[in-house]
Amino acid sequence: MLIIGELINTSRKPIKEAVEKRDAGYIKKIAKEQIEAGAHYIDVNCGTMVFNEVEMMEWLVTNVQDAVEAPLCIDSPNPEALEAGLRLCRYGQPMINSITDEKERFDKVLPLVLKYRAKIVALCMDDTGMPDTAEDRMRVARNLHAKLTAAGVPEEDIYFDPLVKPVSSVETAGIEVLETIKMIKEQYPKVHFTCGLSNVSYGLPNRKVLNRYFVVQTMAMGMDGYILDPTDRDMMGAIYASMALLGQDAYCMGYITAHRKGLYRHES
Amino acid sequence: MLIIGELINTSRKPIKEAVEKRDAGYIKKIAKEQIEAGAHYIDVNCGTMVFNEVEMMEWLVTNVQDAVEAPLCIDSPNPEALEAGLRLCRYGQPMINSITDEKERFDKVLPLVLKYRAKIVALCMDDTGMPDTAEDRMRVARNLHAKLTAAGVPEEDIYFDPLVKPVSSVETAGIEVLETIKMIKEQYPKVHFTCGLSNVSYGLPNRKVLNRYFVVQTMAMGMDGYILDPTDRDMMGAIYASMALLGQDAYCMGYITAHRKGLYRHES
Repeated sequence: MLIIGELINTSRKPIKEAVEKRDAGYIKKIAKEQIEAGAHYIDVNCGTMVFNEVEMMEWLVTNVQDAVEAPLCIDSPNPEALEAGLRLCRYGQPMINSITDEKERFDKVLPLVLKYRAKIVALCMDDTGMPDTAEDRMRVARNLHAKLTAAGVPEEDIYFDPLVKPVSSVETAGIEVLETIKMIKEQYPKVHFTCGLSNVSYGLPNRKVLNRYFVVQTMAMGMDGYILDPTDRDMMGAIYASMALLGQDAYCMGYITAHRKGLYRHES
Repeated sequence: MLIIGELINTSRKPIKEAVEKRDAGYIKKIAKEQIEAGAHYIDVNCGTMVFNEVEMMEWLVTNVQDAVEAPLCIDSPNPEALEAGLRLCRYGQPMINSITDEKERFDKVLPLVLKYRAKIVALCMDDTGMPDTAEDRMRVARNLHAKLTAAGVPEEDIYFDPLVKPVSSVETAGIEVLETIKMIKEQYPKVHFTCGLSNVSYGLPNRKVLNRYFVVQTMAMGMDGYILDPTDRDMMGAIYASMALLGQDAYCMGYITAHRKGLYRHES
């Protein structure tokens, strides 16, 4: 299971304010809290800073790494910002978020994946847009898998993102994702997965409840990575409980540790 | 989704006391509460009353049906107690809990299934005992499916119980069940499922949390029935949320209704 902490993102107001004020202390605090809560990677995203994204990426990456010796997930649609972040990564294998099978994006991001030997989040979309069905996603996944491995990217470094859409707009949005995970896992047992999942609950009440159960469902299908808020104790509790139920937690020790840390304290 | 309310069971102390005192009011109250909370069937089990199970079954079935016009799940390993209950069933299609592929039990329960045109819970076990792997369960399921359908039981009336065992004793206990559901569903798309699930969490803390996530996992694999406490709001909330995520809830109306009833009120 790979948990990527999502909190350092300038689309979140407190992060935006901290970046604007160059408040390194706040950024370091959020980085530390995510690692202490169980994150393995820290996502860094300042895509909303359209005029100085490159400079801000460098500032964020430097400060995060002053706080935690953890690998980073450099998150931007902008190849220059990606490289600015990757160049400064000091700890472990970096991750790039993300590549797609859109021609221009693929051609610009692939060299960075190879140059920095990075793990790569591969979104199941291409120049025809966002796919609806599992079969459409699978077609893109096959193309991406073929092109990435042909270029020399190890299968183990590919993290497919099945693209989660709201069930409130299309009823089948959730099961198409479950089906996609199953199909990718059957065809490419060595690849990994990751996704942001909060889209699934868009437009519905109690979004955190739905997001949490969607993590449990996708884990049952073989999903093994998420970009999420690791300080959400209910969410992390759901992940540890699911791992125990799925036989991914020897002697249930991860679950029992989570219990002792009080992650289930308010649960009935 | 078929919810079978499990509360009327003399292994539960308040039910045992009510039965011993012939406190029909309490039994009726528990029956009503379960239906109001969303149960479709009411399970009736007085298997602990070893000296007068038949008489107690008749008393319970009569009183439950005085309270609610709902179909019953007559639950006993004792064919005489099963028939005593079935004979009195007045509302809808009764369910028998359960048959196995143990020769003696199969031969005694099958005639009741046919005579009362009952839905039948088919436990994946036989005279060789409780199976460990999905493949072992599947072998029993294939035998039971062949024998039940050959005898004239419609596939739609068969509810396979994949036999849930504690993950605390065998790490793979959960995934073997998930795998069993997937295999049965692929081979026999028309059959249904049910199970009691609290075994899965035996020996671990926060059992209700684990039971709830196991429901979410098994639903993702195709499980469509449970024997549980329908007055457990968190559990029912998990089921409604899962149905919305799985595209089994048109316009998410079941989920939104559950929200309006306050099932998620204390959730974050």
